[in-house]
Formats: sequence, C-alpha cells, structure tokens
Amino acid sequence: MEFFPEVKEISFEDAISTNPLAFKYYHPDEIVFGKTMKDHLRFAVSYWHTFTLAGNDPFGMGNMQRSWNSFSGLDLAKKRVEAAFEFFQKMHVGYFCFHDRDIAPEGATLRESNRNLDVIVTMIKEYMQSTGIKLLWNTQNLFSHPRFAHGAATSPDARVFAYAAGQVKKSLEIAKELGAENYVFWGGREGYETLLNTDLKFEMDNYARLLQMACDYADDIGYRGQFLIEPKPKEPTKHQYDFDAASTLAFLKTYGLDLRFKLNIEANHATLAGHTFEHELRYSRVHGMLGSVDANQGDPLLGWDTDEFPTNLYSTTLAMYEILKNGGFQTGGLNFDAKVRRTSMTPLDLFYGHIAGMDSFARGLKVAASLIKDKVFEEAIAKRYQSYQSGMGQDIIQGRATLASLEEKILDEPVDSFESGYQELLLSRLNQYLLEVK
Amino acid sequence: MEFFPEVKEISFEDAISTNPLAFKYYHPDEIVFGKTMKDHLRFAVSYWHTFTLAGNDPFGMGNMQRSWNSFSGLDLAKKRVEAAFEFFQKMHVGYFCFHDRDIAPEGATLRESNRNLDVIVTMIKEYMQSTGIKLLWNTQNLFSHPRFAHGAATSPDARVFAYAAGQVKKSLEIAKELGAENYVFWGGREGYETLLNTDLKFEMDNYARLLQMACDYADDIGYRGQFLIEPKPKEPTKHQYDFDAASTLAFLKTYGLDLRFKLNIEANHATLAGHTFEHELRYSRVHGMLGSVDANQGDPLLGWDTDEFPTNLYSTTLAMYEILKNGGFQTGGLNFDAKVRRTSMTPLDLFYGHIAGMDSFARGLKVAASLIKDKVFEEAIAKRYQSYQSGMGQDIIQGRATLASLEEKILDEPVDSFESGYQELLLSRLNQYLLEVK
Amino acid sequence: MEFFPEVKEISFEDAISTNPLAFKYYHPDEIVFGKTMKDHLRFAVSYWHTFTLAGNDPFGMGNMQRSWNSFSGLDLAKKRVEAAFEFFQKMHVGYFCFHDRDIAPEGATLRESNRNLDVIVTMIKEYMQSTGIKLLWNTQNLFSHPRFAHGAATSPDARVFAYAAGQVKKSLEIAKELGAENYVFWGGREGYETLLNTDLKFEMDNYARLLQMACDYADDIGYRGQFLIEPKPKEPTKHQYDFDAASTLAFLKTYGLDLRFKLNIEANHATLAGHTFEHELRYSRVHGMLGSVDANQGDPLLGWDTDEFPTNLYSTTLAMYEILKNGGFQTGGLNFDAKVRRTSMTPLDLFYGHIAGMDSFARGLKVAASLIKDKVFEEAIAKRYQSYQSGMGQDIIQGRATLASLEEKILDEPVDSFESGYQELLLSRLNQYLLEVK
Amino acid sequence: MEFFPEVKEISFEDAISTNPLAFKYYHPDEIVFGKTMKDHLRFAVSYWHTFTLAGNDPFGMGNMQRSWNSFSGLDLAKKRVEAAFEFFQKMHVGYFCFHDRDIAPEGATLRESNRNLDVIVTMIKEYMQSTGIKLLWNTQNLFSHPRFAHGAATSPDARVFAYAAGQVKKSLEIAKELGAENYVFWGGREGYETLLNTDLKFEMDNYARLLQMACDYADDIGYRGQFLIEPKPKEPTKHQYDFDAASTLAFLKTYGLDLRFKLNIEANHATLAGHTFEHELRYSRVHGMLGSVDANQGDPLLGWDTDEFPTNLYSTTLAMYEILKNGGFQTGGLNFDAKVRRTSMTPLDLFYGHIAGMDSFARGLKVAASLIKDKVFEEAIAKRYQSYQSGMGQDIIQGRATLASLEEKILDEPVDSFESGYQELLLSRLNQYLLEVK
Repeated sequence: MEFFPEVKEISFEDAISTNPLAFKYYHPDEIVFGKTMKDHLRFAVSYWHTFTLAGNDPFGMGNMQRSWNSFSGLDLAKKRVEAAFEFFQKMHVGYFCFHDRDIAPEGATLRESNRNLDVIVTMIKEYMQSTGIKLLWNTQNLFSHPRFAHGAATSPDARVFAYAAGQVKKSLEIAKELGAENYVFWGGREGYETLLNTDLKFEMDNYARLLQMACDYADDIGYRGQFLIEPKPKEPTKHQYDFDAASTLAFLKTYGLDLRFKLNIEANHATLAGHTFEHELRYSRVHGMLGSVDANQGDPLLGWDTDEFPTNLYSTTLAMYEILKNGGFQTGGLNFDAKVRRTSMTPLDLFYGHIAGMDSFARGLKVAASLIKDKVFEEAIAKRYQSYQSGMGQDIIQGRATLASLEEKILDEPVDSFESGYQELLLSRLNQYLLEVK
Repeated sequence: MEFFPEVKEISFEDAISTNPLAFKYYHPDEIVFGKTMKDHLRFAVSYWHTFTLAGNDPFGMGNMQRSWNSFSGLDLAKKRVEAAFEFFQKMHVGYFCFHDRDIAPEGATLRESNRNLDVIVTMIKEYMQSTGIKLLWNTQNLFSHPRFAHGAATSPDARVFAYAAGQVKKSLEIAKELGAENYVFWGGREGYETLLNTDLKFEMDNYARLLQMACDYADDIGYRGQFLIEPKPKEPTKHQYDFDAASTLAFLKTYGLDLRFKLNIEANHATLAGHTFEHELRYSRVHGMLGSVDANQGDPLLGWDTDEFPTNLYSTTLAMYEILKNGGFQTGGLNFDAKVRRTSMTPLDLFYGHIAGMDSFARGLKVAASLIKDKVFEEAIAKRYQSYQSGMGQDIIQGRATLASLEEKILDEPVDSFESGYQELLLSRLNQYLLEVK
Repeated sequence: MEFFPEVKEISFEDAISTNPLAFKYYHPDEIVFGKTMKDHLRFAVSYWHTFTLAGNDPFGMGNMQRSWNSFSGLDLAKKRVEAAFEFFQKMHVGYFCFHDRDIAPEGATLRESNRNLDVIVTMIKEYMQSTGIKLLWNTQNLFSHPRFAHGAATSPDARVFAYAAGQVKKSLEIAKELGAENYVFWGGREGYETLLNTDLKFEMDNYARLLQMACDYADDIGYRGQFLIEPKPKEPTKHQYDFDAASTLAFLKTYGLDLRFKLNIEANHATLAGHTFEHELRYSRVHGMLGSVDANQGDPLLGWDTDEFPTNLYSTTLAMYEILKNGGFQTGGLNFDAKVRRTSMTPLDLFYGHIAGMDSFARGLKVAASLIKDKVFEEAIAKRYQSYQSGMGQDIIQGRATLASLEEKILDEPVDSFESGYQELLLSRLNQYLLEVK
Repeated sequence: MEFFPEVKEISFEDAISTNPLAFKYYHPDEIVFGKTMKDHLRFAVSYWHTFTLAGNDPFGMGNMQRSWNSFSGLDLAKKRVEAAFEFFQKMHVGYFCFHDRDIAPEGATLRESNRNLDVIVTMIKEYMQSTGIKLLWNTQNLFSHPRFAHGAATSPDARVFAYAAGQVKKSLEIAKELGAENYVFWGGREGYETLLNTDLKFEMDNYARLLQMACDYADDIGYRGQFLIEPKPKEPTKHQYDFDAASTLAFLKTYGLDLRFKLNIEANHATLAGHTFEHELRYSRVHGMLGSVDANQGDPLLGWDTDEFPTNLYSTTLAMYEILKNGGFQTGGLNFDAKVRRTSMTPLDLFYGHIAGMDSFARGLKVAASLIKDKVFEEAIAKRYQSYQSGMGQDIIQGRATLASLEEKILDEPVDSFESGYQELLLSRLNQYLLEVK
C-alpha cells in the first residue's frame, strides 16, 4: 500500500520554480564547510506530529486527512510504520524520533503495552535495516495518560513514579535495540500547577532520582547513547522544572548529573522562556551542553507552543552558526518537532512543511558557513575585546589582578569608553550574507 | 531644617480610618509567630528611589517635588542624608540601602568620587549611631555612567573592568565601615544587547572573576557581611546573565561561588522572568540561597520594571509564607525597591507609598503565620505525598529502588491516579485566611 | 439517579470553617446596595466546562471523573441534563449557559443534529419550568467541527457559511423556546492564521453579514433577547476579529450593528488582549455596551486561556464596582466560563470551584458596594477634575473654547501641575475596604 | 562647520562589499512597480532620535557622541539644524519629522517657547528651500514636561488642556508655514495609570475635543495637510487610549472624527499591542485609514518600545506589500522612528542605522513588488474564496441570503471542508522571493 501516492519524489530545482514538491536549497550531497549538507543537518522526522497526531486543538476536533485513519489498534500502528518509512524515503530524511506511545497503542497494563511495542519495534528494526534510516532518539510519553496528571517522576503518588520507571526501562531497552543515538527526557508534567499543594524540593529530588536510575540502567544493559534533557518553561503545567537551559544546568549540577546529560534545545521552548533560540544554543554550547535540537518555531505574539515548521531564515542561520561553532553535532541532529497548521490538513501539507523546514535550514547552513569563513562576527568580536590581550586585561584573565591592583591603575584616570558595538552595522552584514551567499 | 514638615508622625489606627498618615496593620512591637513584627519584616528604605531619583521616565522629565532640589553637589548629598534620616525615623523603618552613587556625587576621577563618599559616609555613620538605624546592604552603581554602556565586569574594555573593580573595593570598605549586613551585586549591564558582537563565555568568566576578587578583598579587610546577587532577566540590557534564581545558581555553581553568595529576590524581576515572586523565593529557599528581598511589585500587563510599592496582599502573604518557612531572614530584610508613580510627585506620596507597602507586608505576615500555624497547606501536602512514607515510596526516596525493581511492582497493575490536587479549594482557604485572620 | 451523592447541600457558614462544602460569603437573600445578592450576581453555570468537557489538554487525555461517562449518544446527553439540574440546585445557581453542541450530539446532517437538540431542549424546558432555573444565554458552536477549521462566517467556503447560518437559525429558535435572556456570538475561528492567504476585508464583511442575518431572523421569529459578542484576541486562531472591546466596537460601528449588540466581557480574554478585566468592563460601560460577563480568571504569566475559577478578590471587587456603576446587569449575569484544573478531577472539585467563584464575587460585591457608598474613588475623582467645573474648564467641555481662546489664557502663564494622583494611597484604601468591610 | 566630516557621501555598491558607508539595495532612482524607489519609500529622518536624544535609558545617562553637544540653548538648536540638513543630504533622504520641542528649547512661557520656535522655523524653512528636503510631518510634544504627567488633553487640570491647545495651535501654524504634508497626534500621556482615579469617559471626550479644535483651527488657517493619529498601547502610561488601529478607529467613529484622520502605524507599537506590523497596516488599509508609517522594529522578547532600526526583511517586505496594495503612500512616508542602540554611540552609527533601515525597506519593496506582480498570494486567495463567485456564495455577498434560505441548502448535506490553507507552502514561497528576486 502506498500512503502518499501523490508524491513520487521530491525534486531538486532552482528557487522560484512553481513546483511545490521541490527542494530549492537542500542538496544533500553538496559539500559545505567540509561535510555534506546531510551530514551537517542530520534531519529527523518527529513520529508524533507527522504520523500520530490528529489535528485537534483546545477548541477543535481532529481533522487531519490521513489514509491510515481507517485502521485501528495494532493494525493502525503497523500502517503508520509503513507510511513513516515511505515518507522518510520520499523526503530524503535520514533520521526519526518517537515516544513509546507514538508507535504502539497503550494496553491495559504495562506488560501489555510492552508487548505491543515489541511487535512494532521488530517491524521498525527491519525497516531501519532495509532503508538505512536511523533513530536519532526515542523517549517515553509520561504526560498524556490520566495517571500522569500530577507528574510522573514528580507525581505525589509513588505508584505513578514506579509506572514511569517501568516505561523508561522499556524505552531504554528499545533505544539499545534500535541503536538510538540519543535518549531524551522531556518533563512535560514534571512541574507544578500551584505551589500551594507542592513540595518543590521533594519533587526535584525525585526527578533526579528517576534520571539517576535511568543512567544506572543504561549502564547495566550497555546502552551508550547520549542522555538529553529538553527544557521547556511551561505548558502543559504552569511551571516546569526544566524551565530553560540555565535552570536545567543548575538542576543537573545540584544532583551531580551534569556530566551524564546534555540538552536538547527547542526553538519554540526557548522563546516561551523569554530567550532567543540562538541564546539557548549559545548558552548550551559554551557550557559544553549542546546535544541536539528540536527544529521548529513559535509565534512571538502567541503564548503557547505552536510548534511551527521553521521558516525564519534569521533563526535557521543563527542556529546553524552555533551548531557549526560547536564543531557540528556529535550525536544530535535537527528533529522537526513541528506540525502542519490545523488548516493544512492534507497529506501534501506534510511534504510542504518538511520541505519548508529543510530548505530553511539548508539556506541557514550556507549563510552561517560563509559568515564563519569570512569571520564577519569573529573579527568584530576579536577587535572589541582586544584590551584583554595585554597589560591590565591579561592580568585580569590570568588571575593576577586584585581589586587593589586594579584600583591603583584607574584611581586618577577619567575612564570613558565610547567604542561602538556596531549592532546596526552587523545586522546589515547579516542581511547581506543572508541574501547574497551563493 | 525639616524636610517633611507636613508629617509629624505616622500614627497607628484602626483600618478604614480616613487618616492617610496612619498604619492600619503594621504594629512594630506586636508579637507574631514568636517575634516582633519589626524583627520579622526588617523593613528598609531604598535611598535611590526615595531621595535621589527625579521622576523622569523614557518620555518625560523629572517632576518630583523635593525640598532638597534647591541644593547641588555635596551640599545636595548632605541634605539628602538629613532628609533620609528624618524620613526613616518618621516612617518607623530600621534599615536602609544604597548604591555608592546615590549618596555622593561622582567626581572627575575615582579618587575624587571616593573623597565625596568619605564625607557622606562619615555623616551617615554619625546618623546611624545616633538613631540606631542600620544599613541592610550597600552596593555599587556599575550601570549609569556612560563608561558602563557595554557592561562593567563584562565590558569588552579592560579599563572599565578595572574601574568597576575600584568601585567595588571602595564600596566594600564602606560596607565594613557602616556595618552593612549584606553586600549586593546587581548586574544591570552584565549581559548583552546582541549575540552578534558578544563573547558570552568570556563575559561570564570575567563576571565571575570580579565576584571572586570581591570575596577575596572582603576576606582581606575582614568584612563579614553576606554577599548577595540580585537576579533580573533584562532591562536595561536585552539579556542579563543573572536572569533568574535558577540561572544565577547555575552560574554560581559553574564558578564555585555558590557557597559564598545568596540571592536577593525582587518581586518585579521575578515576574519579568516569567515566574511568580513566591516561585523565586521558594526556589531560593529550598536551595539554601534565600538571602534578602527587594519588596515591590510589577504590573503583569507591562513589560518593564515598574517598581511599584507592594500592595497586592496575595503576593505579600505568599512571600512572607516563604520567609517564615525559611526560618525568617538571617541577614536579609524587606527593602522597598519601589518608587512612587510619576503622577505621585508630592512629598506626602513618599509616605503613602511606604505605608502602603509596610501595611501590606504586615498583613501578609499575619496571614502567613496563621496559615503555617494551622498547617493549611502543610496538611494538604503531607496527605498528598503520603504514598512515599512506606513501601515502594520509601524504597524510592531511600535509594533502594531501580527501574527493574519498580517495573516489577506495576507491570501487571493498571495504575491510575485520580486524587485531586484541590487547587480551587486551597485558593478558597487562602482567601478566607486573607480576610479573616485577626 | 443522583449524580453528586457526596453533596447533599452547600451550607452557609462563617469564614474559616473547615467544611469545604460551605459558602462563607455568598448569602443569596442578603440585601446589598438595594437588592439581594442573588439578583445582583445572577450566577450562571457553563454547561460545557462542567458537564461536557473531559479534561484533555494539548498534552493529555481526558481524565475527569464523572458518573455520566458510562453513557453515550443521546442517553449521555440526557444524563447530563439530569446531572446539570441537580448541580444547579445544589449550588444555589439560578442560571446556566450552553452551546448547541454541549447539550446534544451532532448528527450526520444538520437535520439530524437538530432532531437531537429537539429531544434535549424539550427535556431542559421541563426542568427549567419545574425548578425555576433560567437560561442566561445560549450560543452555537462554530469552532469544534473540522468544517470550521478556516472559520464559520469567515470561512472561504460558502457551504460552511451556510452551515453556520443553519446552526444559528436553530439556536435562535432554541433561545426563543427557552426564553434565553441573551444570545451570544463568540467567533472562536472568526480570524486568521496567516495574512498571506487571507482576504481580511471580505472576511469581516461576511462576519457582519451573518450577524445581520441573525438580527433579521430574531425579528422574524419575535426573539427579543439581547445580542452579545464576546471579544477574544487569539486562540484558537492567531488573530481573532473580535480582539477586544474596542476593536469589537469599531467593527460593530463599521457595519451599523452597534445598536443591536452589546458585549460579553470575559476576564481571561481581557488579559490575553493586554487589558485588565476592569478596563474592558469600564470601556464597555462608558460606551453603553456592557451586556454580560464571563467570570473566570487567567494566569498573568501564561499565554493561553486557562479559564480558572475566579478567586482573585481584587478582580472580583473591581468587576463588581463596574457592574454596580452600570446600574447592575440588565439582561446579563456572571457566567462561570471556568473549569476546574485537570488535577482537580473529582466531582467534588466542581463544587469547590463554583463555591470559590461565588464566594469571591459575593465578597467583591460587598466591598464594591461599600466603596461606592462611601465614595472612596468618586470623591478623589471629583476633586481631581474640579478645574473643569468652572471658567476655562467649563468653556472646554461646553464647546465654547478654541485653540486660540485657550492659547490666550496661558500664553504668558508658567503652567505647572503638581497635584498627586494618589495612586498609592488609593491602593491602600482599596486594601482596607477589601479586608474590613462587614 | 561640518558635523559629520567622517562621511563624504554614502556610496552605492554591490552587496557584501566591506564598505560600511554604502547602500547595497537602495537605488533612489531605480524604477520599481512604476515609480522610482525614492518616490515609493519617501524616507524621513526623525529629528528627535537623531539630533536631540542623548542616549539615556532608565538605568543610564546620556552617552551619545555628538559634535553639537558643546553648544547650548538656541545656539545648540541652530547647530542641530545645520547638522540635520548635512545629514539628510549625505543620507539621500528627502523628508524629516519633528516635535516642537525637538527643534527649539522650551522657554519660561509659551510665548517665549514660540519665539524660540520662530527663530528655528525660519532657519529650517531656508534650508528646506535651498535643499528641496521636505517636512513629512510635525507634531507637538505633550508628554515630556512635568505639566503633562497626568495627560495633556486628558489632564484633570484644565490649564494643562489649555497649554496643550496653545502648543497645537503653534504647531499647526508651523505645519502650514513649512508645508508639512501631514500633522500627527501621538497621545503619549493620553491614557491612565490607574482606573481608581480616572474618569475614563470624561478623558476620552476631552481628547476628542482637542482633536476637533485642531481640525477647526486648521480650517481657519487653511492648513490642508492630512491629520494622523499614531496608536500605541502603553508606555509611558499603563494604558493609552489609542491602543491600536482598531481602538483608534472606534474612538474616531464614536466622536465623528473618522473622516478627518488617518493612522500613522508604527511597527514597534503594533507588536507591543499584540499585533504584527503587517496586521496593523492591513487593518488600516482595508478601512481606508492607512496614512503613514513609523518605520522601526521592536524586540519580540522585550516589553518596551525599543525603537530599533528596521532590519528584519520579512517585516519590511510585508509592510511594503501592504503599502503597494494601498496604491502607495498618498501623503505619508516611511519615517525612521528609530534610534541607534545606546552601545552604538558614535556619529558613524547614525549612518549605519539609517543605511540598515533604508536598504532593508528597499529590498522589501523589490520583493513585495515581485510578489504582487506574480500574484503569489493573490492567486492563492482567489482560489481559496472562489466558492463565493457563484450560487449560494453570491447570494450571501449580494445580500440575497437569509438564515432560512441557507439552512435549506445544507440541512441534509454533510458539509465538510478539507481544503488546505497552504500556510507552509506560502511561507516557502515568501522565502524564495526574499532570496531570489533580482
């Protein structure tokens, strides 16, 4: 059965062709900055947004037109696997990501759910082997079921903690079985609705306990993928413990987990927390914590997680700039944690959305590579901080200066500082690169 | 010279009297929860908002009617000291706080500025001795002068770092001289305007270097006050390194400074960062980092630091709840980092503003004390988490559980969890206490 | 069948009793400001939040524990009616509100849906007659079904417009049949996702066309209830045409509908639009457009419609202040467009939520009535604007002044203006009334 | 005296040259869409941001390096005029805008202020005649002086209203004298700080009275420029009456002023009100109210008016799209209500900022013109709404349909609607045009 018969293949064409099923900027095998585009970008499709979600929103029912909707139960799960690998191949995407409950239906007990997973994981493994498509990461859904209403690791109910632990155990086994390059925790309900009924410290302690158990179990079974935490400030809960990169780092350091985990940074979560996407990437990068990326975008005027396909070229350029400065991804990639709008309900829109995202990041990669090659920002930065290359500046960064030694140097000096930061000029340069890079 | 002749003394009256110059809820010597109100609350007046600022805003000139405005230079500085101590006494406030540049004019060189400071510090010391009023904390202004446009410790200009170091040195000496119970860093320009011209890691390293030098110098001169950092997410810069309590904790831990510093939490800074005031207090408290409080409030619909006098009784109650649960303040207090509105430009408004704030926190203290005494939230919390008191729950918190041991317990159990968190009921209880506590 | 056997009756007790099933402030028959509390407040229960919604959120499944969940189809609809009237009576609430699809299931065609409605409307009518409980308003759901993904009156598909028209027709007939005191339009999908594919003017024209047709049809069938529009800025769409009270007024005036419609102001929609609840009420009131109120509250730190039960006493007080200044409600009332948190999933929480809301508005009514009776704000306002009571001020408001006549008066006058607005003092007074009114 | 000796002329070069003093996209005489670029864009320099403001922010002193800073009083005002016309000419800008107090110092009385204005206006007029540079608009500053703390037309003090009237009178005379093509009202303090002390209706009435007097006086003196109101939601006040385009339209219609005024839309004000820039332009355009544009940009993560130079090419493209669809500007233009960052304090930054803005709008013009020429969005829109071109759709828009006639058509039809809105595809197309248009 073919699930997307309307699409035979995405072609590669010049920009401003009228063919909507064509990449204009993504050329997988083109060498940029020493590697192929596809090796830089490591695109992944999110199983949930593309194959599982129905299109409902807080005020509306599901409306997505999907050919597999006529099936149900395990049959539906199998059809989704078939559709997924057809889609991955047609889209030229080399990776995918999933939560346990995306790929197989939940049973009446965990044992039953695990049995369903076993059927589907076997099927997925075969598809992976025959197509060469890889699992960027998997994770567990600890937020949809009613039992998780108060949290999973942070639930006030110990049985719920145990259930979460069971799900993590199984998902780690799947990660090993399928060779997942990373393993992600997103604590969607690990937070609180109101402080009035919350033991904040107890909950954070328990959250750390679950993470430690996961590390221990990965060691037990020899799973070597990179552990990742994905920060998000709020939604569904009022306040989530992994609010942003910095608060997640504080948490990991508090519990001695900072050497075991890196961060999975999502664009839309960054802006919901009051940061730019590039800020969260930069912060993670300079702290050695940049693991992987959930590539999407939010609407700066909307206060919820819109998970739009990333099309803003400023954002894709500055994101790729940070990733290149990081030496590229090690185990991570660009996972499209993005969904077509509810008003884009046809199967073709799934292609248009992914093409939009892939082209936008491909263009971002090209522009970022040129910016770095030409040292556009690097030279401005080197010049700006040059006073630290000698004298008093060196004393400061070498640890030889004290308040007293520094005071002495400026006590009778009228110190002014009228060097421009050239923000407007640098923004012009960014625009020129965005438009002109070949 | 009397600066506030309109006010002889603030009286103590029953609520809903028509006397605007009366405390209705603040009774300094009343015992609440084992201590006098004044010992719980440790109110401080902010020198800058009350004696220095002129009332200008981004679109308007100064308009505050102050009798000392006819003076200038050091004379003005001296008159402000006189006015300040008159005000502290009339207001029944036992503490105050200042930046170096609030109390004495900046000279052409640091040496000259320090000489001005010496004159005023001597005068302040005498007033402190004769009145018994104490310095809750002092700090240095590293953000107003043009030289700090790009930051102070994080300036790209090493001379500016040195100048900042010199100011910190002098202010630490003043802290020792005046017996400041705390010493505060607020990094108003320690952040960035744009990542395009910023070496984020270098700047954060340098910021930590200045803090370390300050600790070393305090040790050298035997200053034993508590060091505090005051988080704020943005404004004046686009992004400040001390974004919120969690990011400040991450910073302090990264640079090994977390045992030396605590946090000074400001209500309006909390909300600008996307947190409630009580969240920032709770987070600081459970991490052992709650040092002191900047008592004010923001407007949740405005995106800048409005620094309003705190009148929201929910906020003062929940803040005092956290402070009481912290065992009260050790060295900290409630500093009114609050200014009268630009439309409240008369001298009397300074009194009305402080009365509003003091009465609101006094009421908050009473309500919070009753809530704790009656265990309104504590019992709900104990009941909610009781599953961790035995069996599997105890295994988890005692570190005896593993993913495998937990999985075994729930593998064939249909785990549901339909215990209410009773948020609506707890909010009703909060209202009842707010209204009914005697 | 009894649906809420845990609750026999809500009692009336003193504040801070430990009985959670008691009103502390709501005394239906107490006379306040010339009328009984119940006549002032005209509380209504929202059918959708209390009897229809399942508890799902964007990241979680339904989890509400409701005894009628075991039924389905029309049987479910009937059980909900029984439960609803049991609830209304136990809660001492005199009104309710619904959308067409809340009360009866949608059929395969509109004719079939209407048949389902007829069954339930007949049943509701009998319950209304036997209990005396009234319909504050009804409305039509033009946002949940997939056909409305692009809008209803503003859909680009004329068949969808027609379908919407059909639903409105039926709902107006129901309004007449049940004696609805008002008829509401909430344009949940009447807006756009992106301007790139939107003919803004065409859509606004069509929206007005549907409203005009509704007015015409009401005239045809002799339905005399008040038409209301409920503004909301966004969610589910990116931008809704009824953004706030002012933009709705602009719309109504543009299309000549301003004499036929009033506004239904919702607290949470106000704050999402960047306004306080009391601002939207004040604006509506002074423009003669205040019709009814959706009583709930949002979380000022969250960017979506949380629809919480209203417990903030500042907000309920200032809302009741505007309503009393409006001469009370004419046809409107306080509809609890509010839902218990997903973590408050037990049937009892429905009672706790409504008690919280009703007590909060009852207290707000008492405080507002005292504020008005004592002219706390009115006297301050009269004094503040007194310069318009004579001379030049009278010339201005009587239309006798011109630029030239006014210039003449001040050309050589140094006009200053240093009268305080006394904001801090007025906020203190508000607190005193909030706490002290008997 | 030459004020900008570093700059001889801005050159015109290919993109990505390393010359920072060059236009890359702005070619004044190039024909685009039937007119020269300069006639489309009608760029204006804001006198206040570029020649008057000092660089202070709420936490910092002025720091802008300007060669005219050594002068004071009327001499300073004269030097600024010289500097301004030097700058206009070097920048190839044909228009400028000012407030009365930008160009001449305020005197002790209005008569004295007017005398100062007369001196400078005479000087400006001569420069205008000799250079051909025109006044896009002027306005009056009714927000900086302390007397306006409570508002100008909406002040509770009638003398302040009169003073404002006097300023408007003089400024209208200047508008006539200098041939200002528009006359702007921005009500920076026409709003409130708190409703507790505010008579909302009285204030809005008075605001309308001042506007009516201005219209009358313009008629008296034969000034024929277009009156404009510039919406802004807040800042400096908590809530401004001209919140956004829609609320301004409601206000104008309420007071019968909608035929006399159009809107001056500012990008940063749009986003502060929760709208995109293009939304406010579209809304104004379709209501026949699009007058002129304040070209700048805000930071979507900051809650205050940052007034940055516009560099976001999406925003400049979509703005020019609306302006072209409007048939271009009639009397309006693109006024750079934008200031260099405080960290861009050198004179050269003024050039970099304006080049950035002008190049960004020039590129936006080219892209928008191509989008319209190729009907990229127009065809998608025509196809999307085609069901209204015949049958039932025509009945609806021709006014022949009723609820009953429409119901009849769909009563037994299962109406679904699964046409995509193609948002992702259209965003891809926008990117392609942005990058590829020649």
